[in-house]
Amino acid sequence: MVKTISPLLQEIMEQPQVIRHLLQTEAGRVSEVAGRIRDRGIEFTFIAARGTSDNAATYAKYVFGSINHLAVALAAPSLFTLYKSPPRLTQALVMGISQSGQSPDIVAVLRQGRRQGALTVAITNEGDSPLARAAEYTLLCRAGEEKSVAATKTYTTQLALLALLSAELNGEESMLKELKSLPSHLEKVLSLDEVIREYSQRYRYAERFVVIGRGYNYATALEIALKLKETSHIVAEPYSAADFWHGPIAMVERDLPVIMIAPRGSTLVEMQRLAKKVGSRGAELMIISDDEKMLELAHLPLKVPVSVPEVFSPLLYVMAGQLLAYHVASIKGYDPAHPRGLRKVTLTR
Amino acid sequence: MVKTISPLLQEIMEQPQVIRHLLQTEAGRVSEVAGRIRDRGIEFTFIAARGTSDNAATYAKYVFGSINHLAVALAAPSLFTLYKSPPRLTQALVMGISQSGQSPDIVAVLRQGRRQGALTVAITNEGDSPLARAAEYTLLCRAGEEKSVAATKTYTTQLALLALLSAELNGEESMLKELKSLPSHLEKVLSLDEVIREYSQRYRYAERFVVIGRGYNYATALEIALKLKETSHIVAEPYSAADFWHGPIAMVERDLPVIMIAPRGSTLVEMQRLAKKVGSRGAELMIISDDEKMLELAHLPLKVPVSVPEVFSPLLYVMAGQLLAYHVASIKGYDPAHPRGLRKVTLTR
Repeated sequence: MVKTISPLLQEIMEQPQVIRHLLQTEAGRVSEVAGRIRDRGIEFTFIAARGTSDNAATYAKYVFGSINHLAVALAAPSLFTLYKSPPRLTQALVMGISQSGQSPDIVAVLRQGRRQGALTVAITNEGDSPLARAAEYTLLCRAGEEKSVAATKTYTTQLALLALLSAELNGEESMLKELKSLPSHLEKVLSLDEVIREYSQRYRYAERFVVIGRGYNYATALEIALKLKETSHIVAEPYSAADFWHGPIAMVERDLPVIMIAPRGSTLVEMQRLAKKVGSRGAELMIISDDEKMLELAHLPLKVPVSVPEVFSPLLYVMAGQLLAYHVASIKGYDPAHPRGLRKVTLTR
Repeated sequence: MVKTISPLLQEIMEQPQVIRHLLQTEAGRVSEVAGRIRDRGIEFTFIAARGTSDNAATYAKYVFGSINHLAVALAAPSLFTLYKSPPRLTQALVMGISQSGQSPDIVAVLRQGRRQGALTVAITNEGDSPLARAAEYTLLCRAGEEKSVAATKTYTTQLALLALLSAELNGEESMLKELKSLPSHLEKVLSLDEVIREYSQRYRYAERFVVIGRGYNYATALEIALKLKETSHIVAEPYSAADFWHGPIAMVERDLPVIMIAPRGSTLVEMQRLAKKVGSRGAELMIISDDEKMLELAHLPLKVPVSVPEVFSPLLYVMAGQLLAYHVASIKGYDPAHPRGLRKVTLTR
């Protein structure tokens, strides 16, 4: 009997090669869009997205902010659809991010932006979709068909396109070069599969998780929590490390599993401070990091075997979380590729 | 023996009179700030806030967007503090919202905005605070001292100031008039105290909640979930109704308590659609609404005895949630005014 591999695990494993292919084929188009952004004297970026794609938008908020000094507003689509009273966007870069390019509310934001004369860009895996047709420019994820309901390779390709756009806008050769070597680093993260599978066993009866990141990896915390929710039907709460101090820390107790995403970089000291506090309250900590000192604070250290500039770390670290979500779902007896009650394309107004 | 009333309950009950006082005393200053915003030709709003105040910022995103056509970006303070690479803000209205006016990261955003020559506005309960000193203009909550760690009257006064600013910017007489009659409507919400106390009993052993709102009341969902977390140390997850379709709906099951905030208005039809779906999956629904048809979908209907324009409904509906958090905490045997492990002022970088 041949054991078939789950489409979810397969799609997780495909990511390094898919992103390698993407960086080669979409670079020209990204560079063109970057040129248009520079020419237009854009004042701010306005991004519409839902679900996993909204987590990519959060990544954009930190990358465009820190690298390109562009403020990012995440759209409230209901202003466009239910309230029919959209903001002024003429000076904005209006961006829609959607795997399927189908969601009517995201399409409505792009259409409105274009009507107002704003520069509009779609990031999607479907070139022949309403979102792609609504936008002046489309950046394609080129991830191939994604069979699992839980998005993985379409998320990391979205991140890669956003990072590439930021690097092109910035124009620094070193950032573009680092980005090109990312696929081989991503491959190394996949070697964590074995230890993640082992760790996952202790979560067989876990019903809630807290996932914490900061800065660039706040997006990673959001996305890992969403994967855990989608595949294992558990309550997984994402937090920025800073917001966690402002209230939610009250719920930390002995039997709360906490996952921290803490690569080396500008946020590490703050993550360490929080890890000590959370640990002192008795919670069981899994820490995903490339920093030995940080990993010492963990009950379950997950050592990422490669270090990259912090701005690119979300691509690596989310893959560890995807593997975790896959194995936790498997151990709980769910089919991780076909979560209960979810469809691949969700249409919201 | 005199039974002393909890400071939290007292502060919840004070809100109508505190807001009445605020609308009278702060109107002139708000009008002045509105004038400056008009004069400057502001392109977008950039708001920095944490915790409860961040939920007020989310309210601002919908109000400024729908009423004043102003896009709102919520700041990522780490860009200013940890990454030291802030976005360009010269064309923005830069706003900081903080009860105490103390948090260094929020102050850093205002200072940077002012350095860049942006119009800066602080919303705080403390006129003599670093935030107030950093901003060109300060709008005071005038809520009096807040003894409870869980913020209530400082939140609703923040909302009232934001609504007042939006109305002044808009200049429509009717909106200003409706706002003036709000305090008497708020008083009527307090009459729900009895039924909320009764409903709360069934949550004695509940360990998780989902709280759902949309549009203006997405902020309400965020804030009610935060109150439940702060006072009862439970996992309470807030969602916009639209985001809930994109994944988290997978976790709905028989024993998951779901709270929906659903006043009459542009979002009601979408909330009804979701309530039917959630109900069909067996979850126990509490619905807070002024709409009879919507309330019929609830296992636990909470009828708000007064109807206001949807834009002001978050002030009313959050009070019901504050009462719920208070009573759930009491029934679980916690001191709702002094949550475990929290301090009133949190300093994050």
